[in-house]
Amino acid sequence: MEKHILVALPLSAAQRDTIRQAVPGFQYRFTTQEAATREEILWADAILGNVPVELIRQNRKLAWFQSNFAGPDPYLEPGVLPPDCIVTNATGAYGLAISEWMLGMWLALAKDLQLYRDRQHRHQWDVIQRPVRSVAGARVLCVGLGDIGSSFARRAHALGAQVVGVRRRAAPAPDYCLRVVGIDHLDEELPQADLVALSLPGTPETAGLFDAARLARCKPGAILLNVGRGSAVDCDALAEAVNSGALYGAALDVTEPEPLPPEHPLWDLDTVLITPHISGRFSLPRTLENIVGIFAHNLRLYAAGQPLDNQISRRTRYVSDDVPGCRLTCE
Amino acid sequence: MEKHILVALPLSAAQRDTIRQAVPGFQYRFTTQEAATREEILWADAILGNVPVELIRQNRKLAWFQSNFAGPDPYLEPGVLPPDCIVTNATGAYGLAISEWMLGMWLALAKDLQLYRDRQHRHQWDVIQRPVRSVAGARVLCVGLGDIGSSFARRAHALGAQVVGVRRRAAPAPDYCLRVVGIDHLDEELPQADLVALSLPGTPETAGLFDAARLARCKPGAILLNVGRGSAVDCDALAEAVNSGALYGAALDVTEPEPLPPEHPLWDLDTVLITPHISGRFSLPRTLENIVGIFAHNLRLYAAGQPLDNQISRRTRYVSDDVPGCRLTCE
Repeated sequence: MEKHILVALPLSAAQRDTIRQAVPGFQYRFTTQEAATREEILWADAILGNVPVELIRQNRKLAWFQSNFAGPDPYLEPGVLPPDCIVTNATGAYGLAISEWMLGMWLALAKDLQLYRDRQHRHQWDVIQRPVRSVAGARVLCVGLGDIGSSFARRAHALGAQVVGVRRRAAPAPDYCLRVVGIDHLDEELPQADLVALSLPGTPETAGLFDAARLARCKPGAILLNVGRGSAVDCDALAEAVNSGALYGAALDVTEPEPLPPEHPLWDLDTVLITPHISGRFSLPRTLENIVGIFAHNLRLYAAGQPLDNQISRRTRYVSDDVPGCRLTCE
Repeated sequence: MEKHILVALPLSAAQRDTIRQAVPGFQYRFTTQEAATREEILWADAILGNVPVELIRQNRKLAWFQSNFAGPDPYLEPGVLPPDCIVTNATGAYGLAISEWMLGMWLALAKDLQLYRDRQHRHQWDVIQRPVRSVAGARVLCVGLGDIGSSFARRAHALGAQVVGVRRRAAPAPDYCLRVVGIDHLDEELPQADLVALSLPGTPETAGLFDAARLARCKPGAILLNVGRGSAVDCDALAEAVNSGALYGAALDVTEPEPLPPEHPLWDLDTVLITPHISGRFSLPRTLENIVGIFAHNLRLYAAGQPLDNQISRRTRYVSDDVPGCRLTCE
């Protein structure tokens, strides 16, 4: 059965070959998310790449959508994809890029590197007279322990931190965690954590999870990282918590709304670092390699009529919940 | 034999007790580097802490000087200490603090965090459109593999980097290094290294080691870190190498001279990060704990008439070269 495969990502010739060679019998077209036409999208039985929602919703025969994101939120809204279209995500592709961003931001805040950057602009050789912090020995609470959260947890553990994981449900602890508790135990773990690292998907359950009340449960002087979805953190409450000194600081790659409005108080806080949702993307070349690998793997399963991996439950928006297949990792 | 011990460091009551209890029979006085008086310094048989050189040189009976630095350069100049005064350093105390600084700086440069900091000041949610780099998979050349260099090498390896060490002489490779070569093989290793991490003591051999010619041997686009002594790097040549694009960037905690003059071109380079010799100091509370531990350990040896550890050869300025004792580690 000669399926039509549309690939909408900025791939190299070698990466296109990897995909073609996964299943040589299929027909392929290669384009980009921006250049994809209505005709190409309607032609496809399967699509790799987040083409425009308003075009993909016109394809009522689409059998498989492989997102290049971990959280393809807009494609999961009712009516966008046909009811029996399989949705797979890019879980596994972003762990490396995003966990290194998290580590860099944590170390920057721990060592006052952003304040030394400011002094550098003024050509000032000027010591900041206050203690710094260390990663080694710190207690880390990884809220969300999917590909990104577990990649970060492994790194933090390797650098001497003590890591506790939080998932939707309690689970056996991997060797890099002291324990893994269910989200219902979040409030018990928060007061011990020097660093709270959020990598949660955007779901009704995670929206507003870190509101003023929950931020107030954090250990005095804790640092918050957020790389999941901005909706998990109340940015106004966070600004107040940092400004009052209850929290030491925060590093955010996601906010709600995005972009963060220019007048928001978070921009001017000395111990808050903000990047414009860039920790993932394709800015690390390895990420795109990983996505190609995931897609080629799933293409072979698709051609063989077997269940795909990295399938997302449209109900819970998590992988391997009420869907077949398993969660891929690339590290 | 009731020795007189002067401790010139900002210690807590618990830290003073740790020292007193190491050898209860000695007499102790506690002061700070700034407050130490001539009378106190002349009273001492042994001193912990870098008291002023012009005062310590007046004590011609001093038997032991325990520096709180890894590189107590000015105390090693001829005539400062009595000829048979034992000098011990704080090797082991700074590995954690300085290696985490190195990692933070590397990640900051790899992920453009300093440029996002600049955008944050302008309240700009503005993506930098160029690839980032990763620590995982990078080749790291650790030039200097003492306490600081090996602490960093272990961390880089744990994060997926491939580490090659450079010492004065080739040595068996620890499990976190691909190999350890002698300094005479530096020029063969440089063209492969994505990151060159310098943690060298200030000696005649290391002065000017990274001049224009050696910087030109680095891999195009490499990053240079320096936490040892500023004298190892020609700052003018480094500015040229980064400015021309031959090197990607650099992070410096030490320069020659210090402070770096306000008019130096390094201050304004986008991919050069400068801190004012702060990666060590006592800014990480654990560092001072480590120094107290090293001193208490050596006090016990001193009271027992055994060779002290962390002794520095006045000839080579390295530990365990032509002196007895071994090199301590605190990790």
